[in-house]
Amino acid sequence: MKIIRYLADGRAYYGIAGNEGRIERLLGTSLRDPQPSGHVDNLHSVRVLTPIERPRVFGLGYNYRAHSQEVGKTSPTIPVLFMKPSTTVIGPGDSIVYPLEGQNIHFEGELTVVIGKEARHVAEADALGYVLGYTCGNDVSDRVLQRRESEFGCLLVGKGYDTFAPIGPVIETALDPSSLSIVTRVNGEVRQNGNTADLVFSVPQIIAYLSKYMTLLPGDLIMTGTPAGVGPIEVGDTIEVEIEGIGILRNDVVSAVPVQS
Amino acid sequence: MKIIRYLADGRAYYGIAGNEGRIERLLGTSLRDPQPSGHVDNLHSVRVLTPIERPRVFGLGYNYRAHSQEVGKTSPTIPVLFMKPSTTVIGPGDSIVYPLEGQNIHFEGELTVVIGKEARHVAEADALGYVLGYTCGNDVSDRVLQRRESEFGCLLVGKGYDTFAPIGPVIETALDPSSLSIVTRVNGEVRQNGNTADLVFSVPQIIAYLSKYMTLLPGDLIMTGTPAGVGPIEVGDTIEVEIEGIGILRNDVVSAVPVQS
Repeated sequence: MKIIRYLADGRAYYGIAGNEGRIERLLGTSLRDPQPSGHVDNLHSVRVLTPIERPRVFGLGYNYRAHSQEVGKTSPTIPVLFMKPSTTVIGPGDSIVYPLEGQNIHFEGELTVVIGKEARHVAEADALGYVLGYTCGNDVSDRVLQRRESEFGCLLVGKGYDTFAPIGPVIETALDPSSLSIVTRVNGEVRQNGNTADLVFSVPQIIAYLSKYMTLLPGDLIMTGTPAGVGPIEVGDTIEVEIEGIGILRNDVVSAVPVQS
Repeated sequence: MKIIRYLADGRAYYGIAGNEGRIERLLGTSLRDPQPSGHVDNLHSVRVLTPIERPRVFGLGYNYRAHSQEVGKTSPTIPVLFMKPSTTVIGPGDSIVYPLEGQNIHFEGELTVVIGKEARHVAEADALGYVLGYTCGNDVSDRVLQRRESEFGCLLVGKGYDTFAPIGPVIETALDPSSLSIVTRVNGEVRQNGNTADLVFSVPQIIAYLSKYMTLLPGDLIMTGTPAGVGPIEVGDTIEVEIEGIGILRNDVVSAVPVQS
């Protein structure tokens, strides 16, 4: 089942995306127990939104060996975790805003987990039972700021600019995350071509690890790390993250507007 | 004005705390424009809650020179920022849960800023206009995990256990944050005795810096860093953080309950 969030008649709805642009509108916002409203919308006459509004976003670094190698890092012995502020999140079709002072901003296509129910002290074997589904994510990163912060052992603004977490287009609920093709294209050219089978820490391992320390909440997102092939984005680019069984997350890159002082 | 959040008759309310335990109950949850309901509660017959429920929490590391010296770090040239998950937040009187596998868990008393309105690209000179008020915070930290994560340039679980951010007891809205005494006591004994005048990055500087990258939202908390004197907590301890003009945040430390497997 593909859950989609969208704007129709000025209001946000959840729906189930079907064939030929058909969306079965849902009642309310419960994603655990979706209730059809009976109303049908058409994909071509609505605006698709990020599947979760202002979520908590947990991100992983260096979670594919080939990516760690390309940036000169050894693979970590623990999940390298950080948070992206909820204000980083945008939907499919929204624009990534390239900061005026940006120098080296990179795309990072990532399988993104959507938590479905409260999870604490969850065993690996049970972890996937706490997942609502999966979506595509782009963990946009400012390499200059990221490096500067990591020297002090922290990470926030380098991953935290507004619009630096495009998410979508749908939450696919029926998917095995263990071996999915993940491709990132810049202006149509393939730049990342990985597979989630190469994750250093698998989805169940990440959920078990996080839930050992904290309560995961419905709607939490976990961006599971990026495969090899990262590279810079520029104003005017179109970035696509395509994951097998989910779809294509497409966003363009626009320039920030100078601040009036 | 001291804004307090509390449980009465099984419901959470905001109120204005006055003399002799008098609380003027407010209508709704708007803290920008508080409307008295006419109802009065008594502090001694209610349970005080964290002033903000499940906020975004931004934390700063190494923001007092004397603390950086005691842990053998040089003072940073940029604000050292991380996020604590919303699930770390507890209220006054709630218990800090000492993890079963914890080895070296520290208290960190901190002036905590509560954002009052959306802030983006805010100048230092205007920054305090975006603040609703100030409260006390305790940035509880697992030093073993923190060190392990920082080696990989990130920071989450070392600061992110459930209950690792006691906040309260009130939001004081009429306060100049530039020179406030901040004292932390363990079982009544003074362990930290600092002053916000010694902050490396001041409250206006932190807000200007953060808002350069991201939109700050009403209810966001910024824990501004801890003065010298940090040290371990143990099960059975009572930790108090007292800040001039705000009050005392008091929490005890209890042992985690073993997980059934």
